[in-house]
Amino acid sequence: MPTLDLITERDELNQVLPLRARVSELVRRTQEEVCAALEQVDGGTFQDYPWSQPSSGGGLSRVLQDSRVFEKAGVNVSDVFGHWSSDLGQSALGLGDGASLPELPFFATGVSLILHPHNPMAPTVHANYRYFELGEAAQPHAWWFGGSVDLTPAYLFDDDARHFHGVLRKVCDRHDRSFYPRFKRWCDEYFCIVHRKERRGIGGIFFDRLNEGNPEALYAFVADAAQAFLSAYLPILERRKDQPFTAAQKEWQAVRRGRYVEFNLLYDRGTQFGLKTIGLNERMLMSLPLTARWRYEYQPEPGTEEARLLDVCRVPRDWA
Amino acid sequence: MPTLDLITERDELNQVLPLRARVSELVRRTQEEVCAALEQVDGGTFQDYPWSQPSSGGGLSRVLQDSRVFEKAGVNVSDVFGHWSSDLGQSALGLGDGASLPELPFFATGVSLILHPHNPMAPTVHANYRYFELGEAAQPHAWWFGGSVDLTPAYLFDDDARHFHGVLRKVCDRHDRSFYPRFKRWCDEYFCIVHRKERRGIGGIFFDRLNEGNPEALYAFVADAAQAFLSAYLPILERRKDQPFTAAQKEWQAVRRGRYVEFNLLYDRGTQFGLKTIGLNERMLMSLPLTARWRYEYQPEPGTEEARLLDVCRVPRDWA
Repeated sequence: MPTLDLITERDELNQVLPLRARVSELVRRTQEEVCAALEQVDGGTFQDYPWSQPSSGGGLSRVLQDSRVFEKAGVNVSDVFGHWSSDLGQSALGLGDGASLPELPFFATGVSLILHPHNPMAPTVHANYRYFELGEAAQPHAWWFGGSVDLTPAYLFDDDARHFHGVLRKVCDRHDRSFYPRFKRWCDEYFCIVHRKERRGIGGIFFDRLNEGNPEALYAFVADAAQAFLSAYLPILERRKDQPFTAAQKEWQAVRRGRYVEFNLLYDRGTQFGLKTIGLNERMLMSLPLTARWRYEYQPEPGTEEARLLDVCRVPRDWA
Repeated sequence: MPTLDLITERDELNQVLPLRARVSELVRRTQEEVCAALEQVDGGTFQDYPWSQPSSGGGLSRVLQDSRVFEKAGVNVSDVFGHWSSDLGQSALGLGDGASLPELPFFATGVSLILHPHNPMAPTVHANYRYFELGEAAQPHAWWFGGSVDLTPAYLFDDDARHFHGVLRKVCDRHDRSFYPRFKRWCDEYFCIVHRKERRGIGGIFFDRLNEGNPEALYAFVADAAQAFLSAYLPILERRKDQPFTAAQKEWQAVRRGRYVEFNLLYDRGTQFGLKTIGLNERMLMSLPLTARWRYEYQPEPGTEEARLLDVCRVPRDWA
C-alpha cells in the first residue's frame, strides 16, 4: 500500500499529467484495492498474468480461481492503442452504425472485473470503468468515459438489491442528479438477453460515450464510482458467502451462469469488439464462469424463489 | 416401426410427391430411427416437445437429459417457411454477402441432432441434414441440400476417428468420389473456433448449397448419409460409454464443452440465422451441453492425452 506521502505526491503529479495517464493510474489503483480486499475475504491469492504487445498495448490480468469464496474472480486492467479503421464498424465504439469515421489513432484504458462466488446465495458482480480517446494524443477529436456496474444474483434478496442500487444512486447523485435514473435504465437496456426477453440480473448502472461538460468533473465521477464498488458489493458478499444451500440451488446458479455466458458471447460489446478487431482471447473470456449448465426447457415452478428472480429479470424494478 | 407394406406404399407415393415433402418425410424417419436406437443404448426415454406456428412452420424436438448414457441428447426436426427479405443477409443462407436477393418465399426442412454422453471417453457428435427452397413451391428459383456430421471427442482414440471417417468416406464414395475430400476439408474449415485457432473436434463432413446435377441423385446421397449416421457413431459409443475415467478427465471434458459453447454461440450459422431472423430460442440452443467449464489459462501439459487431442484440433489429420 502507498504511504500518505506517496499519495500526496501522486495527487500533485496528477495535476500536470494528461487525463489518459491519470485514468490509467486510477484503473491500476482500483485493481490493486479491489484485489487486496477480495483476497482478505477469500483467503486466497490472485495469480497475475501480465501481457504486453509493443504494437497494441499492455495490461495485467489477475485471477483467483476455485478458491475458498470465489469460483472465479478476474480483475483486468489494460491500456490499448492503435488505429481505428472504419471497417471495424462504429458499434464496437458505442457509436451508431450510421456515423462514418476516418482512420484515427485511438487509446483506451480501463479496468474490468467479474466475480463469481461459489455460494449460490452470493451474487455474481461485474464492474468496468474505461476511458477512450480518438484522434491525436495532444488534441483528441473525441474522448469519453464509459462504465458499468451490475449485479447478477441467482436468488433475489430485496435488501441486497436495495443496498447495491442505493450505493450506486448515492455516488451518482453526488455528481449529477440525472445520472442514476439515466444510467440505471441504460443498464437494464444493455444487459438484456434479447432472445430470452430477460436481463442477465438486477442491473445497476451503465454509461458510455460520456463526455458532456468538463472532463475533470467526469473523471471525478468515475473515480468516485470506482471507489464505491467495494462498498456496494462487499457487504452483500459477507452476508451471503457462508449461507447454507442445497444441491438444487447450486444447480439453479449454474443454469443462471449459462444465461450469463449467452449474454457475454452473443451480445456483449466487448466480445464483439474483440471478435471484429484484434481477435478474442483468453483474457476477454475471463468473464465466463467456471461452471455453467444448460438444462433443456428448465422453467421454475410459479411461486418459487427461482421464479421470483426470473420475474425481476423480465420486468426490472426500481430499487433506490 | 412401419410394416413392409407401408414402406412399399410409401416408396410408391414418393414417386409422385415433390422433393420437399420427401425430404420432410426422410428427416422424420431419421429422427425416429436415431431416437429408437439411442433409447436402446441408454435405457431412457426421449421427451417430446412438439411446436407449431401457423405462420412459420412446425417441428418436433426430442430430448433425453441427464439419463444413463447421455448427459444431453437432442434430436430436432422442423419444416419452416416464410419470406426471405434481403435485409436478413445472405450469409445465413450460406450465400456470399455480395449477392442481393429479392424478397422470396422460402421453405426449409431438416433434422439436427447433438449427443453429449456422460463418459468423457465417449465423444460428442453432431449431425444435420437439411433441404432448402427459395422461390415458388412449384418452381423454386433455388434449392439445395446441406448437411454435416462431426465428432468432438475429449480424448482421442485413433481407432474411433478412423472408423467414423471411414464410414463417412464410404457413404460419400458410393455417390461421388469428389464428395468426401471436399466435404472433409469444408468441415475442418467450418467448425473452427477462430479465436482459439482450433477446430471444435476431429471433423467429419460438411456441405452446403449442394445442388449440382440431379436432385434425385442428391436426395439419394443425403438419405444414404442420414442412414449411415448410426453405424458411424454407435460402435464408438458402445466401446466408450462404460470406460473408467477420473475426475480430472471429467473436468477436461467440461472444458472442451466450454469450447463447444463458444463455437455454437459465436460462429455457428444456425445460431446467427436465429439471432438475425426469428429470434433464438430454447430449441436452437438445444445443442449446448448440460455442463461446461471455463478454467482460466488452462493448458494441458505437453505429452499428455489432453495435449494430443489439442494437437489434432489445431492441425486436422486425414483419417480415411
